[in-house]
Amino acid sequence: VPQDIVFDLPWTLRRSPLVEEVRPDTVAWMAKFGLLHDQGFTVDQFASWQLTELAGYFFPDADTEGLRLASDLMAWYFAPFDDQFDGSLGNNPAQVARICADLVTITDLPPRPGNSPTARALADLWQRSCAPMSQAWQRRAHLSWSSYLATHLSESVNRAHGYFPSPEECVRMRAQSTSTHVVIDLIERVNGFELPALVWHHPILVELRRLAAELLGISNDLCSVEKEEACGDTANNLVLALEREAGCTRRDAVVMLRKLTAERVHRFTSTQRRLHHLDCFLQRDERNNVRRFVHGLEALMRGDSEWEHTTGRYSPQAGETAAQRARASSSWQPLEAAQHRSAM
Amino acid sequence: VPQDIVFDLPWTLRRSPLVEEVRPDTVAWMAKFGLLHDQGFTVDQFASWQLTELAGYFFPDADTEGLRLASDLMAWYFAPFDDQFDGSLGNNPAQVARICADLVTITDLPPRPGNSPTARALADLWQRSCAPMSQAWQRRAHLSWSSYLATHLSESVNRAHGYFPSPEECVRMRAQSTSTHVVIDLIERVNGFELPALVWHHPILVELRRLAAELLGISNDLCSVEKEEACGDTANNLVLALEREAGCTRRDAVVMLRKLTAERVHRFTSTQRRLHHLDCFLQRDERNNVRRFVHGLEALMRGDSEWEHTTGRYSPQAGETAAQRARASSSWQPLEAAQHRSAM
Repeated sequence: VPQDIVFDLPWTLRRSPLVEEVRPDTVAWMAKFGLLHDQGFTVDQFASWQLTELAGYFFPDADTEGLRLASDLMAWYFAPFDDQFDGSLGNNPAQVARICADLVTITDLPPRPGNSPTARALADLWQRSCAPMSQAWQRRAHLSWSSYLATHLSESVNRAHGYFPSPEECVRMRAQSTSTHVVIDLIERVNGFELPALVWHHPILVELRRLAAELLGISNDLCSVEKEEACGDTANNLVLALEREAGCTRRDAVVMLRKLTAERVHRFTSTQRRLHHLDCFLQRDERNNVRRFVHGLEALMRGDSEWEHTTGRYSPQAGETAAQRARASSSWQPLEAAQHRSAM
Repeated sequence: VPQDIVFDLPWTLRRSPLVEEVRPDTVAWMAKFGLLHDQGFTVDQFASWQLTELAGYFFPDADTEGLRLASDLMAWYFAPFDDQFDGSLGNNPAQVARICADLVTITDLPPRPGNSPTARALADLWQRSCAPMSQAWQRRAHLSWSSYLATHLSESVNRAHGYFPSPEECVRMRAQSTSTHVVIDLIERVNGFELPALVWHHPILVELRRLAAELLGISNDLCSVEKEEACGDTANNLVLALEREAGCTRRDAVVMLRKLTAERVHRFTSTQRRLHHLDCFLQRDERNNVRRFVHGLEALMRGDSEWEHTTGRYSPQAGETAAQRARASSSWQPLEAAQHRSAM
């Protein structure tokens, strides 16, 4: 089972002590926005998927407010949103485009009565993320969101056209579709600092972010491959792309995945050793923030790995359940406009 | 001489018929903002460097207003800004950081009396670029600008620390430092349309932009290598990085450059063949705009190549002049705050 395969990562796992405190808050948040449903996403599922735990691995130093934001975000990703695209909807680019375009505008405009529960919940996440942050941060965070939302469309375009990306394309695409860059932006938000633009765009930081996002994409594709096979969704997964390209077994593909991961870990640590190059133009507190940011990237990579091996999301049974749910015409449609509900 | 070496590109050169009309307007614009100086950048130099011609290759379908904006931008890049970093300033990251941070803020705040001529001219370019464009466009254009401005700092950090990037790092870094993404953003501005966020972030478009930017960086590094050697600036050039890594001659490095270029041309045209995949979620006018955008990328790549072989900027004499100018303590310091001038 892919979930049992562990890749070596050199970083120590850290856990927020506030997970127990925050978990019920996220359940309440999901209920408030209409993201829980007994035929859709249930409280039991939320608990078994360990989504507040994931937020706690990502942001071990967060205060309660920050961890709540991160935990709500994880719930939003996994509960209503991601799996909705597994079924027939995922093969209909025009419909996916309509839904994703609606979600992109949510980050620009106040929610309208016609917005879906998912869109209203996103508006809440976006407003809370931005509240204490500068215009510069909001600009780049907005781009990370748009880029992530666009991936649901591009994956559905590949399915509809029977296009199978190369392994190299998969690595890039999945780095974008795991939404890691949105979570990376939250490192500053949750820990209460901001990196100056000139640091953010320095090739060292660009490279470290890229490597972290690719690493999460690679390991996520290993975890989700059986779930995606169960759903008949074979176009966009890196493991399947490697098997196709090399005509190899699952076992061989896992060996390649391990190599791709090790290469990125090596490049991350060697790039990181040049961080002191930035000190010559930074103040003391800025130098400190750069280090906090990079430790934040380490926490993402290490925490994601821990979660992937402990969550109930990627068991084969879960895959079948997701496929059944996607096929069933559930009364729960959190991506559809809810004219008569009062979600907010 | 590198300038005589031509790489095969499959696209037809197109020229704006408005170049002669617009050239004097850009001279007047430079004069207005204090960017011309008889000991700095002169009108003759501007003409011999063919910067309005470059704008005319990049935007062959521009109207007068659009070509004026593009031509002023080319003048800004090459005249006061870029070469200022060739001399001792380029080895002083703290000072470069101060100047670049000032320029980044210019795109957020109205110009202040203490801003340099370069900063005031940038504010004018930025305002004219944004005037007819949406908030979404402005957000991504702002990121392209910040990223470009940051490269002057990162190149100076490499010089100061004696860090020599690998060829792979050079390709990425130069794609950013040639500012191609700023010019790419202008394709929509000058031609009067905007791509929706979901199209902009689609992997096909992301890939085409990346390839175009890398291609310009590669060919620019070949053209500028002798100029940079003359300035003693050997840390950041791809040709020199290839020679260092492979321990090879200039001739061998040029062969590798030709290969890097051909690979990118091939990937561009093969990726482009999948553009019709996007049609399934686009309206007719949006489909048309996607094609116009991609033709705009072709014009950038083909036009840049033409210009590099005809401009007077990259002759060996020009390299020495730039080096002398950078070393000399000219009275012309367009990057410095100008308290007593009235540039605007």
